[in-house]
Amino acid sequence: MRMYEIIQKKRDGGTLSEAEIRWFLEGYVAGEIPDYQAAALCMAIYFRGMSLEETAALTFAVRDSGETLDLSDIKGLRVDKHSTGGVGDKTSLVVAPIVASLGVKVAKMSGRGLGHTGGTVDKLEAIPGFKTDLPIDEFKKIVNEVGIAIVGQNATLAPADKLLYALRDVTATVDSLPLIVSSIMGKKLAADDDCIVLDVKTGSGSFMKTLEKSRELAEWMVEIGKRAGKRMRALITDMDRPLGFNIGNSLEVVEAIETLQGKGPEDLTELCVALSANILELAEKGSYAECERMVKEAIESGTALDTLVKMVEAQGGNGDWIRHPEKFPTAKYSHIVLSRKSGYITHVDTESYGVASLLLGAGRNTKEDVIDMAAGIRLCAKTGDFVAEGEPIAILYSEKESGIEGAERRLLEATQIETTAPKKEPLILGIVE
Amino acid sequence: MRMYEIIQKKRDGGTLSEAEIRWFLEGYVAGEIPDYQAAALCMAIYFRGMSLEETAALTFAVRDSGETLDLSDIKGLRVDKHSTGGVGDKTSLVVAPIVASLGVKVAKMSGRGLGHTGGTVDKLEAIPGFKTDLPIDEFKKIVNEVGIAIVGQNATLAPADKLLYALRDVTATVDSLPLIVSSIMGKKLAADDDCIVLDVKTGSGSFMKTLEKSRELAEWMVEIGKRAGKRMRALITDMDRPLGFNIGNSLEVVEAIETLQGKGPEDLTELCVALSANILELAEKGSYAECERMVKEAIESGTALDTLVKMVEAQGGNGDWIRHPEKFPTAKYSHIVLSRKSGYITHVDTESYGVASLLLGAGRNTKEDVIDMAAGIRLCAKTGDFVAEGEPIAILYSEKESGIEGAERRLLEATQIETTAPKKEPLILGIVE
Repeated sequence: MRMYEIIQKKRDGGTLSEAEIRWFLEGYVAGEIPDYQAAALCMAIYFRGMSLEETAALTFAVRDSGETLDLSDIKGLRVDKHSTGGVGDKTSLVVAPIVASLGVKVAKMSGRGLGHTGGTVDKLEAIPGFKTDLPIDEFKKIVNEVGIAIVGQNATLAPADKLLYALRDVTATVDSLPLIVSSIMGKKLAADDDCIVLDVKTGSGSFMKTLEKSRELAEWMVEIGKRAGKRMRALITDMDRPLGFNIGNSLEVVEAIETLQGKGPEDLTELCVALSANILELAEKGSYAECERMVKEAIESGTALDTLVKMVEAQGGNGDWIRHPEKFPTAKYSHIVLSRKSGYITHVDTESYGVASLLLGAGRNTKEDVIDMAAGIRLCAKTGDFVAEGEPIAILYSEKESGIEGAERRLLEATQIETTAPKKEPLILGIVE
Repeated sequence: MRMYEIIQKKRDGGTLSEAEIRWFLEGYVAGEIPDYQAAALCMAIYFRGMSLEETAALTFAVRDSGETLDLSDIKGLRVDKHSTGGVGDKTSLVVAPIVASLGVKVAKMSGRGLGHTGGTVDKLEAIPGFKTDLPIDEFKKIVNEVGIAIVGQNATLAPADKLLYALRDVTATVDSLPLIVSSIMGKKLAADDDCIVLDVKTGSGSFMKTLEKSRELAEWMVEIGKRAGKRMRALITDMDRPLGFNIGNSLEVVEAIETLQGKGPEDLTELCVALSANILELAEKGSYAECERMVKEAIESGTALDTLVKMVEAQGGNGDWIRHPEKFPTAKYSHIVLSRKSGYITHVDTESYGVASLLLGAGRNTKEDVIDMAAGIRLCAKTGDFVAEGEPIAILYSEKESGIEGAERRLLEATQIETTAPKKEPLILGIVE
């Protein structure tokens, strides 16, 4: 086999065989195929696409590129929830404790954020003492005892994805359906879960800007997961507006805690309940209605929050901060963004909100950047709300004054205000199973 | 400027500015932009193309990526003829001495062959003692005294093209009109000629398989050359069959000598006369009819061959071999390919003929390969000819027996024999000026 011929075949619209796809990926991970040939292939895939069969073959090759976890000594069904990434998306911090408190196991390996979306592991590190790198035995022990543990991604799982994602990130080949599917699912399938519920985001803050594309992404991921023997389901949810009011690491942890206390924002609560109920139904804990009722009870009774506290303490964190989220320090500088005119917020460019938060220090531009835990944005008004001229739209938080002006400009430019109220759009746009 | 945004812009069908194109090329030559980003951009250009303006900007950036020659102390108009590459194309060895004998100067820097087409410099090295790397002062001295010198390409001219071509060659991005134009013309414009006549090949043995694409290539190169202040013309000529009968280095030198002796193959003679007359007309040596007459006289009188002898001797070669081409040794092994059936040769896949010659040792698979000077093919029948079953189609020459079987198979597969004679196609298909 020659890499040149594989590139040429895809460039000319051909279908790669499973053998060709595996040969490429194995050679690339082994360092035998250079980055420039992999980059040319990714760009050819960007233009020509891949069939479902090709995408499945690439996904399984990514999965098999390193170790695969063996979590069989964890008792009970293991579940996972994975989001394709959004702005202000702290659902994992809410959903995982809820479902763990209801008898399924969450042995979660989560990524760090890069670009305008934050990672769950970064957010958890806002809790003092919290350790995200545990030895595998301790990780499994905590899952067995508490029902849940969340750690950083293991470097030995799906190493092909790390290599390929880093390359795609600098060659403008991220936005390709088969490459997104194989990246997400290759990683997920290397972990050892029984049930996976995907939260596929759609709209201005997500990978996929149209509902049609998001549905296709969801369908392919569900199908490929099933072929690998997993129970799968996907919710397609709106990311044309940020989720909840808070963007930024400790700000999001606080909002997640509030949601587990039953006083979270309406949209975030709705999505967390739906995701949790779907996971439980998939794990055969009852009908959807029964699962939904159990989820609401877990919030009202405080057992879900208790589970989060136990996990935080088991992982070395200070549980007191979860019970008293007012302990999280606020940033050195804050600045209130005022509306320049009166009207309804009809649309926001959600990705720009993410970028504004990044400018404030809440995210990473490069892998080496250090995150300011208290930096971020607290929204005062969201899509559909009326704001009068001079009323606050958002509060910006940062440890350094320098990023505030740019973040404010970005946020104002991204916020469309008009005289007529927009149509109210549902948050959950579809379910694929 | 960020390379990511340049790739993304081209990927999305945008038009790159001159500043963006220069920034990319300069950064790439300086080693600041990695191969993988350049490869992604080349593939995006492959799919999206480039406008004439973008292509001109890329061409000029290639030209300016290294030194540009200053040949102003050569007296008289400097002319060059450049072919886009074909199988059995030895026209430079014929045309250059003809026009030099008629009062224009040929200061030619020529490439080596890679793949299925041979390079002029490789062919000249079949002459014992001939030196293709001369100090620039000696090069210019020979041009002033003899009217002509042919040396290998100077490594300091257009280094961007060398880098980019090597990358395209392994990433399946060679066959892209703007990339071909900027590669050829970037190099040509770094040399210091007044008139350039291009021989743009079309058909199965060339870059461009259709006449339409070849015409576009010719038009863009002529236009860009004019913008750089050159007198330009292009002939579009047929490469759907090899040129002449001989393929391979010393075999082609011998055929070129025979053509200068007035006893060359009809097609090769026709093309050499046309190219020479066009060069002379462009150099204002007279009307086309007058120039054509001068060219024919230069062949008949032997002054063109004398000029080649003088050049060979000035460059250290044995001129006696030019006067007595029977001195060129033949290869150790020869094998006659016989026709398997009776009929007319209606079509040949010319590129496959080139590959067969390569298998015999006449070309390079990698830059490090050593060429066998006597290896190659002598055709006994060409497109349009009738061959009876058992009659020879070609004679294969090689220094090693091992390549002969594969070359014979390749050649037979590439030769289409049918009962009806094909329509005779003209050799010169168009002129662009």
